[in-house]
Amino acid sequence: MASCLISRHFALSLHRNVRLSAPACRYVSKAAPKTQQDYDYNGPSMKTTVPGPRSQELTKQLGEIQNVGAINFFCNYEESRGNFLVDVDGNRMLDVYTQISSIPIGYNHPALLKLMSNPNNLSTLVNRPALGILPPENFPDKITESLLSVAPSGMSRVQTMACGSCSNENAYKAMFIWYRNKERGNAAPVDDDLTSCMINKSPGCPDLSILSFMGGFHGRTLGCLATTHSKAIHKLDIPSFDWPIAPFPRLQYPLEEFTRENAQEEARCLEEVEDLIVKWRQKGRPVAGIVIEPIQAEGGDNHASPDFFRNLRNIARKHGAAFHVDEVQTGGGATGKFWAHEHWGMDDPADIVSFSKKLLTGGYYHKDELQADKPYRIFNTWMGDPSKNLLLAEVLNVIRRENLLEEVTRSGKSLMNGLYELQAQYPGILSRARGQGTFCAIDICDDATRNSLLLKARDKGVLLGGCGDKSIRFRPALIFKEYHVHMFLNIFNDVLAQHK
Amino acid sequence: MASCLISRHFALSLHRNVRLSAPACRYVSKAAPKTQQDYDYNGPSMKTTVPGPRSQELTKQLGEIQNVGAINFFCNYEESRGNFLVDVDGNRMLDVYTQISSIPIGYNHPALLKLMSNPNNLSTLVNRPALGILPPENFPDKITESLLSVAPSGMSRVQTMACGSCSNENAYKAMFIWYRNKERGNAAPVDDDLTSCMINKSPGCPDLSILSFMGGFHGRTLGCLATTHSKAIHKLDIPSFDWPIAPFPRLQYPLEEFTRENAQEEARCLEEVEDLIVKWRQKGRPVAGIVIEPIQAEGGDNHASPDFFRNLRNIARKHGAAFHVDEVQTGGGATGKFWAHEHWGMDDPADIVSFSKKLLTGGYYHKDELQADKPYRIFNTWMGDPSKNLLLAEVLNVIRRENLLEEVTRSGKSLMNGLYELQAQYPGILSRARGQGTFCAIDICDDATRNSLLLKARDKGVLLGGCGDKSIRFRPALIFKEYHVHMFLNIFNDVLAQHK
Repeated sequence: MASCLISRHFALSLHRNVRLSAPACRYVSKAAPKTQQDYDYNGPSMKTTVPGPRSQELTKQLGEIQNVGAINFFCNYEESRGNFLVDVDGNRMLDVYTQISSIPIGYNHPALLKLMSNPNNLSTLVNRPALGILPPENFPDKITESLLSVAPSGMSRVQTMACGSCSNENAYKAMFIWYRNKERGNAAPVDDDLTSCMINKSPGCPDLSILSFMGGFHGRTLGCLATTHSKAIHKLDIPSFDWPIAPFPRLQYPLEEFTRENAQEEARCLEEVEDLIVKWRQKGRPVAGIVIEPIQAEGGDNHASPDFFRNLRNIARKHGAAFHVDEVQTGGGATGKFWAHEHWGMDDPADIVSFSKKLLTGGYYHKDELQADKPYRIFNTWMGDPSKNLLLAEVLNVIRRENLLEEVTRSGKSLMNGLYELQAQYPGILSRARGQGTFCAIDICDDATRNSLLLKARDKGVLLGGCGDKSIRFRPALIFKEYHVHMFLNIFNDVLAQHK
Repeated sequence: MASCLISRHFALSLHRNVRLSAPACRYVSKAAPKTQQDYDYNGPSMKTTVPGPRSQELTKQLGEIQNVGAINFFCNYEESRGNFLVDVDGNRMLDVYTQISSIPIGYNHPALLKLMSNPNNLSTLVNRPALGILPPENFPDKITESLLSVAPSGMSRVQTMACGSCSNENAYKAMFIWYRNKERGNAAPVDDDLTSCMINKSPGCPDLSILSFMGGFHGRTLGCLATTHSKAIHKLDIPSFDWPIAPFPRLQYPLEEFTRENAQEEARCLEEVEDLIVKWRQKGRPVAGIVIEPIQAEGGDNHASPDFFRNLRNIARKHGAAFHVDEVQTGGGATGKFWAHEHWGMDDPADIVSFSKKLLTGGYYHKDELQADKPYRIFNTWMGDPSKNLLLAEVLNVIRRENLLEEVTRSGKSLMNGLYELQAQYPGILSRARGQGTFCAIDICDDATRNSLLLKARDKGVLLGGCGDKSIRFRPALIFKEYHVHMFLNIFNDVLAQHK
């Protein structure tokens, strides 16, 4: 078991002289002392292969109720702490995947346990309101203290929702409503609008579209799914809309070594975007909005440059389409800034920014003009959940108090350095290391090898996730320190060295 | 303020002799003693008109962040108890709407407060898992103890989701997947399926449809919205699908007095359903599933007979379409049975039953054959929320322990008797009283009068909701006793008597 640690700094200087190829060659870190709070564990501890016998038994039991084909193993959340997920067979794993990137500050964070033990919060847990009609007294303050305190530039309005898909569905609706109001010159809808919409026909239900990108992922409900193009299994057999799909740049990494080639590739994609907008307008299905992730996550951690996004935002503006940045996976700090789009350095980065996962509640921010003109147009029973807003407010306190964005930047640098090093060491297996903060990924030579490495790493106590065709993505919590980076790199190095 | 109570029994016998028309003529009830637990309040208590000054101030504050056009008032959930919702101006109202029918056993039920105070449940509150890949150890047991203990006849499989819309969206996906697998003879998809679906084209994204009913409501995300036909404002400006929409029977009430006429109307609608299925098959957009509410709720509390539903279920079977019963609003006990479809008396009532609201978690039950054949086809990050399953399990305990379904049946009878009486007394204002359990409604002469009555009742301490064009719907919690029925009837009688 990986109980001693490589210092990346030391290993890097070593690497210049000696190939660090033998898995036995391991060093105790001096540069990265353990700084994690007491509640975290020291390291992984594996008792069985994963899934162990108890997980297998429970999987069989759950199989009587649900499809269990995606179940990895069953967890003991009570015993999990910080960066470590404990399973029902007593295995303790360093979690670099965090429930598909949705655990912001690790398991059982003391601040959250304290918050949920506070009797003053009981009422919020047992009386879920219909927020759109009967909000609790502290709702405006709670939203101001939590979501608005991290609002994207240019946005002072936010709508909460229950999950990522609902957030994007409603963001799309807001864009459609905004677009049609513009088309009508903000006049009231006429009778024909009101009667035709009741039977799903235009002009009431207009032939509008959302432009999305190949490789993008925005959710799996029918509206979202029409803009999702990451894997066939997500989309197969589900009816969809005739909406335009642009190519997302396929960049070469490291980005700084391929500036010219990447700029050409991005220009090609932007040109295609404009062509599609014109083409869909001509075929009577105008583009009301463009939706894009700052880093395509499910689609394989595909990056694009700040220039690309700035140009795309201008294209949206030029053609009168809303610009929707989907930060469901990138938002919440993992890139080293709270929102990934902050890396673009823009005052007016978007018209709509949607979120979920690490924010614990779904929802979207929007510019004033994207607010629906009438009540009940963007609406459902719950419209979010105040108990999640409570948790989020405390998560933001922890992020500030513990300077976690700086921590992420620091850990991210160590992680990228380590990945570059491993990539140099295993060129037949690894390529295209890339990342921002700890939101990192690396490509494996093929799908089968990727899947095999994921399982081997898991059996050695590191939980990772795949994305795209053959990538591994790293999605640790914001409390993932350099200490944990080195722990991961040591184990991953072992796995690679043993890989046949 | 209504502090003395009419006995319905007494009032009814009185009614045969003297028209009970004077609002001053009120009687203390002997037949309906107060039986509610101590934690409930004695009655409404109004300090201001609603919304009061504090609510108005908060609405203004929230207006800087969100559209507040639908906000009724702000609530003090800490002080709310049982059937009574307290607002931020100290007004205490009898709640006959319960957060759009989503509060099962009243506010701050002691059993739920106790549950959420239990330190053993803390981990569930702070570590939300990705249920589809890493469920907690107690998940199969918790699901068995809660959702499966009330599973509809013929269904032993259930999938949780975050809200009603996601439940229906995923239920539709399950029907599409099932239908296409049948069409392919359960063979694997071919390359053309897999490549075409990535760009939203058939055959991968097939031209399939869901048949829905005029007046139906199934949610507001794009898939659901294509089957929702209750109000134009829900649908206006949002692109939709060319899916068939059948007429829902417009019955005459009381049902038992119009058996022949209603049977004719239902036959007409069923015939239209079959015609539409044939027509849509011919135009290359076959009906994969039929979705219907047991009582159309948002659309105006429209009922149909058990015969209608039995025949419709047979039509679905005959044409190879799945039959999806949407119990998001009707499920959870308000009709006097846990599921409204139980009133149809069928062993095999449906292929899919979706739920949310009073169940506190969204989701859907389905027959074995409706389970997606592969993992990740029905999937999202959270796939529900174990903290809601915890609450649901305890709600079900309370329903059983306190025999709440019998209570609902008893209160429902009192409520219907009272509505019939008021309807006889105010024939110019009220008509079409109808209901099952406490899931009741009555029509008002016109929309403006309906809205005025809702506001007047609120200012007198009764919170009601509208539905359809001019109906008032009654959606009390399951702890709404005969005592509360009489309290409501007294106040509503006052409102009607004073109405000019």
